[in-house]
Amino acid sequence: MTSELPIALDAMGGDNAPREIVRGALLGAARLGVRVALVGRRAEVESALAEASDLADADARSRVSVVDAPEVIAMDEHPANAVRAKKGASVVVACAMVGSGTARAVVSAGNSGAVLAAALFHVKRLRGVARPAIGTALPRSDGGSTFVLDVGANADCRAEWLAQFGVMGAVYASSMMGVASPRVGLLSNGEEPGKGSALVQAASPLLAAAPINFVGNVEGKDLFRDACDVAVTDGFTGNIALKTAEGVGEFLLGAISAEARKSLQGMVGGALLKPKLRPIRDRVDYRATGGALLLGVDGEVVIAHGRSDAEAIVSALRVAATAADRSVHSVIGSQIAAAPAAPIEETVTP
Amino acid sequence: MTSELPIALDAMGGDNAPREIVRGALLGAARLGVRVALVGRRAEVESALAEASDLADADARSRVSVVDAPEVIAMDEHPANAVRAKKGASVVVACAMVGSGTARAVVSAGNSGAVLAAALFHVKRLRGVARPAIGTALPRSDGGSTFVLDVGANADCRAEWLAQFGVMGAVYASSMMGVASPRVGLLSNGEEPGKGSALVQAASPLLAAAPINFVGNVEGKDLFRDACDVAVTDGFTGNIALKTAEGVGEFLLGAISAEARKSLQGMVGGALLKPKLRPIRDRVDYRATGGALLLGVDGEVVIAHGRSDAEAIVSALRVAATAADRSVHSVIGSQIAAAPAAPIEETVTP
Repeated sequence: MTSELPIALDAMGGDNAPREIVRGALLGAARLGVRVALVGRRAEVESALAEASDLADADARSRVSVVDAPEVIAMDEHPANAVRAKKGASVVVACAMVGSGTARAVVSAGNSGAVLAAALFHVKRLRGVARPAIGTALPRSDGGSTFVLDVGANADCRAEWLAQFGVMGAVYASSMMGVASPRVGLLSNGEEPGKGSALVQAASPLLAAAPINFVGNVEGKDLFRDACDVAVTDGFTGNIALKTAEGVGEFLLGAISAEARKSLQGMVGGALLKPKLRPIRDRVDYRATGGALLLGVDGEVVIAHGRSDAEAIVSALRVAATAADRSVHSVIGSQIAAAPAAPIEETVTP
Repeated sequence: MTSELPIALDAMGGDNAPREIVRGALLGAARLGVRVALVGRRAEVESALAEASDLADADARSRVSVVDAPEVIAMDEHPANAVRAKKGASVVVACAMVGSGTARAVVSAGNSGAVLAAALFHVKRLRGVARPAIGTALPRSDGGSTFVLDVGANADCRAEWLAQFGVMGAVYASSMMGVASPRVGLLSNGEEPGKGSALVQAASPLLAAAPINFVGNVEGKDLFRDACDVAVTDGFTGNIALKTAEGVGEFLLGAISAEARKSLQGMVGGALLKPKLRPIRDRVDYRATGGALLLGVDGEVVIAHGRSDAEAIVSALRVAATAADRSVHSVIGSQIAAAPAAPIEETVTP
């Protein structure tokens, strides 16, 4: 997985920046053999690097460089405005490195709206893509994953955009998950054809006509079953499904821990079962899954979870390196060029 | 909870009809002291009653009657068309009993679209209500519940309807959950004001102006936290959130059981922990929660889960009896009459 070009890593983005991001960069360089350019306020990043230098040997440390970016975008700033105003913000500089060909991918755990805006300005939309979408993988009971998109880039969607999400998601599933002829489902409030919102009913025939293996409507519960490999939805619904899943997971695992602490019997049972639960927790834990990929832009952009620690950053770097090795964005570009054109508005502003 | 009027129970609705429905009627009559009118094909219902007669003593059995309804609506029929065509279908006859004042509530585990259609035709919309909504309670980590509506009646909603859902949900939370001044949240893809789809952004000021305790946007993960008592959403998003929650729950509990079976250590741990997990499972199990209530019609209509067994029917009868005792529908009627009017179309067909 080595390459001359580094992965640009936003050192200032996320709840635990820069410390955990910098630690993740060193661990990633050591374990994955990748080159990482830490983009952020030089003094802070170098100080965090010095503190964490025991995490990697000299060889790995030599693969981690620092690119100065003096400005920072706060979580409460308007993402697009901040990206326009702050050319020296870490996420802007990191995306510009991909745009200028000095990095092969970008990873950020910062405000996802700001990552999206910076990517649109500096990585740029792929020709023919109406709207980029954010996709992420959910664990399935059969051991596989369902890749869901859009989970937040576009709150209001048109049917044509959903059809493109299907094409982009299918590329992700075959390139990144190794699924031959991925089954693409359309998330709806009922499996029967004809069920769904007006948007779903308009998107269904477009997905059926797209050069993908469209399997029709799927329901919320199907996301965790072997029903499809890619689930297409608008960014509003996808975000709510994703965060609902997160909420139920936290509720259930929290309730189980609480019950296990209430009695000796529970404590013993919990202690015996705990190591067995770790693989399950890992499958639902954002730290292990590597975050989300922005599909439809002219480069590899990984949006890591805002709460990312060093391990989560390593997972995100792994996704970024794999996507860059397989050039997922250019496969998407050629699939979109081959697919029936969707109406494109050239005046997209995030 | 006794009353001269029975609860009309659709004996033919659901995956396990009529056997489990009839058993649930007998158990409900015995445990809750309610009168139940089993509505369905007389011969089948009476045969199921004879088979299950050991579930209730003579006194309880005397509270269970049979109302003949010779027709049945299949799961794959178009709900509204079937309801129009089959005047003798069990769900139609049961709803008509509420409409004519011969039952104080109706419970059905049948096709929810058919229940909705039958309720609109025979129980009728409350004056001033633009669209009835289906609401259901989700468990919260603090031990409380979040009542979510709409979870499936209206796939495409207008902002004004969401504002009414807020008023109706607040009545439910105060009447049925005993919450004083229930906090009403608007389900969105981000907590910040201004986040959300065009629908959410239009609904937010209307909810803020409604005579309720509106707390702004809530996210999917907030449904399982102490963030609000009522979460308002359109029926498409609500359905997907609900079924996603169901799917994650099944995935996690299934994965834990599977891990617990894989090794002796896991088996012993699982056996010790299992009794402790039962209360959690009960809190997320539709059998214990009693199904969903249709709000905004002129009577109490409970939509039980399609997979309902006898215990789930008892829970649904309990919800129906409580709603009837507290006359939830008439409280909603007076609140809607007092609230700023929403545009009403009088030509509603389900």
